[in-house]
Amino acid sequence: MLSALELAGRIEDGELAPADVVDLCAEAIARREDEVGAFAILDVERMRKRAQDRAAELIAAPLRGLPVGVKDLYDTADFPTAYGSPIYAGHRPASDAALVSMIRRAGGLILGKTVMTELAFIDPAGTRNPHHPEHTPGGSSSGSAAAVAAGMLPIAVGTQTAGSIIRPAAFCGVAGYKPSFKLLPMVGCKPFAWSLDTAGLFAARVADVAFAAAAITGRDLRIDRAQPAAPRIALVRTHVWPEASDAMQSAVEDAARLANRAGAKVAEVRLPPIFEDAFRAHGTIQDYEAYRALAFEYDHHRDRIGSKLRAMLDEAGKIAAADYDAARRTARRARQALADLMTDTDVLITPSAPGAAPKTLDSTGFPIFNRLWTLMGAPCINVAGEVDSARLPLGVQIVGRFARDRAALEAALFVEQAIARSHGAK
Amino acid sequence: MLSALELAGRIEDGELAPADVVDLCAEAIARREDEVGAFAILDVERMRKRAQDRAAELIAAPLRGLPVGVKDLYDTADFPTAYGSPIYAGHRPASDAALVSMIRRAGGLILGKTVMTELAFIDPAGTRNPHHPEHTPGGSSSGSAAAVAAGMLPIAVGTQTAGSIIRPAAFCGVAGYKPSFKLLPMVGCKPFAWSLDTAGLFAARVADVAFAAAAITGRDLRIDRAQPAAPRIALVRTHVWPEASDAMQSAVEDAARLANRAGAKVAEVRLPPIFEDAFRAHGTIQDYEAYRALAFEYDHHRDRIGSKLRAMLDEAGKIAAADYDAARRTARRARQALADLMTDTDVLITPSAPGAAPKTLDSTGFPIFNRLWTLMGAPCINVAGEVDSARLPLGVQIVGRFARDRAALEAALFVEQAIARSHGAK
Repeated sequence: MLSALELAGRIEDGELAPADVVDLCAEAIARREDEVGAFAILDVERMRKRAQDRAAELIAAPLRGLPVGVKDLYDTADFPTAYGSPIYAGHRPASDAALVSMIRRAGGLILGKTVMTELAFIDPAGTRNPHHPEHTPGGSSSGSAAAVAAGMLPIAVGTQTAGSIIRPAAFCGVAGYKPSFKLLPMVGCKPFAWSLDTAGLFAARVADVAFAAAAITGRDLRIDRAQPAAPRIALVRTHVWPEASDAMQSAVEDAARLANRAGAKVAEVRLPPIFEDAFRAHGTIQDYEAYRALAFEYDHHRDRIGSKLRAMLDEAGKIAAADYDAARRTARRARQALADLMTDTDVLITPSAPGAAPKTLDSTGFPIFNRLWTLMGAPCINVAGEVDSARLPLGVQIVGRFARDRAALEAALFVEQAIARSHGAK
Repeated sequence: MLSALELAGRIEDGELAPADVVDLCAEAIARREDEVGAFAILDVERMRKRAQDRAAELIAAPLRGLPVGVKDLYDTADFPTAYGSPIYAGHRPASDAALVSMIRRAGGLILGKTVMTELAFIDPAGTRNPHHPEHTPGGSSSGSAAAVAAGMLPIAVGTQTAGSIIRPAAFCGVAGYKPSFKLLPMVGCKPFAWSLDTAGLFAARVADVAFAAAAITGRDLRIDRAQPAAPRIALVRTHVWPEASDAMQSAVEDAARLANRAGAKVAEVRLPPIFEDAFRAHGTIQDYEAYRALAFEYDHHRDRIGSKLRAMLDEAGKIAAADYDAARRTARRARQALADLMTDTDVLITPSAPGAAPKTLDSTGFPIFNRLWTLMGAPCINVAGEVDSARLPLGVQIVGRFARDRAALEAALFVEQAIARSHGAK
């Protein structure tokens, strides 16, 4: 994989030019893209030229001219934007999404748009898992996770409404960062459920994704300049724990033990029943809002919507406003309960997904370990490093407190280092 | 003015067909539009035909085929959408905004798009106040308020980020309803500041706007079927009270007195200092987000942005993330303080604007009596009925508790009736 932090450092030191990094991506794309299928559209030539023409300006900018891939859910004025749907094939937006503009302002080169499930739901596109072509890369940000895992990009952008960043990051074995709700703007990103849709990032490792977030937002999120402090961690199984594979259960318990051995304070926490209610509330809120957010597509192009999404929307129209309101009240109570629960805890540790990437291209897997945390608006990070017996990645999820993104990233780095040291010792 | 509720009733009773109402609008448009300039684009012929072709279906739908005008900030697939900006002249969106779809689902006919200030900021467009052509109609939803006031439409859609619904409603003497934050979806409406942008409605009187909101959302918001209960009202002056004209101060105090005489419990409440902080926080949040929401326009078309908006964006780029975060924390604390303050109060009563519409077309007036309530996410209603010595409308603002929109509308109706009775008695 391409480490954004390392590449940025080598550009700073004059060892690499931005165009050299474009070439590194282009080489990996030439090797892997035919099999993986991560890109909806690419423009390596234009970006190489821009990297050459504007080298000095890019080197001085926070992202140092690093290539970035953007999920095809974000509007781009210079690339077609299809939102993964045949309804929008060839669509050319009039402007760039806010996050795309911010990446350009920060000196990132948008190398291409990445493949996603149709309209960011669960009808899969053709992307394959770089670790095994018969396994799903996860979704809906399939191409973003796969492109980073295959070394084709150092940074990619995704979104999560249920589990669309953390799950594919886990399946592909990369760092995935779903920030606190609305830390990154959603302007110009096609909505699915406005109370849940959250923009986020993929990169090789936790410090890379933190570097990218810091560079794009101008926030103090870099965590690579000092050793991370030992965090206070709570191991949280949630009511869906029995759905996790044995390997996943072991991976999470193992990560907690390794973090503890490295100096972290680790406790176990049982979530009160309100969180089971909140888990269910997520579905009500998502579906109620999707029926409205996708009203135009449903009312005018129902037969061009994928079967899973169409079936969901057919049902979603029946949800009463009172049930939606009750779900939102449950969410608000659960957010307060989570804040109360975490007064003496920096982060939770819990599975990123039920297991490793399933062997199928007909499903992107299930977001049951993600829905609750998306609804909470909490920062979530997938930590890679653990693997199952077939050497497929198993993702461990770090969940932080709302708006404490830096602490969450630091804790994730701490856990990532503890896992890596243990593997190094084996 | 055209009462949505009365027209819907006459359609239900078979006295009017939907096409007859299109004709009523068309007649008023023929009489007033040249002077007022409320429409960015209109398609009366197509809507008349649709009203005829689909009469039975429309009559059976909640909005009964009533014509609706939509602020040109909302995407429409069948009308050009310019967001009030020369950058987007002739732009044709690929889809309808969610609220536009909901209006169509509810049996509304989108008669046209209404004029707005450039990109929903304060650089005025050409719309004139229907009560006096040398006075501003207010902004940014200028055309929506003016079209309803001139009897050219029974219902119009607007948005408010600072004071863009309540202020023009007050200046034009119509009912304006800014619902609780996100009660109406913003999907497909061009963002300005995502934490603040709120969709809302204009209609002749409070019961009309409540009828329209109920029909569009399917929520229990109709308040015309029984006499409204006597509300518990708190008169709130806020720290900007000295900026209100003598006539406006009298209008608010008069409305409170009349409501009290009609049976409402009226108290006076002094806001604690946190609300002055929140008032200032609104500007920080709005400008920080606008610099990102409008990044594409600013980075690519800076010279085609109006002078006031450009000057704001020039400064907004300097706001630090830490100041934005602090402003959001202030907002959260103030929301909690407002909930605590209103435990025994149904609504607040306060000015909708500093006074009547100023005599100028170079400014849309000031949102100083609106910023705080927009930031609070509270439902706000402009109640018309009071006038100044020149017979220009003075708007009284009713502010409800978050998510208690029905109670807020009912209280606004109570106050509206109390004012109307007193005028009838004069």
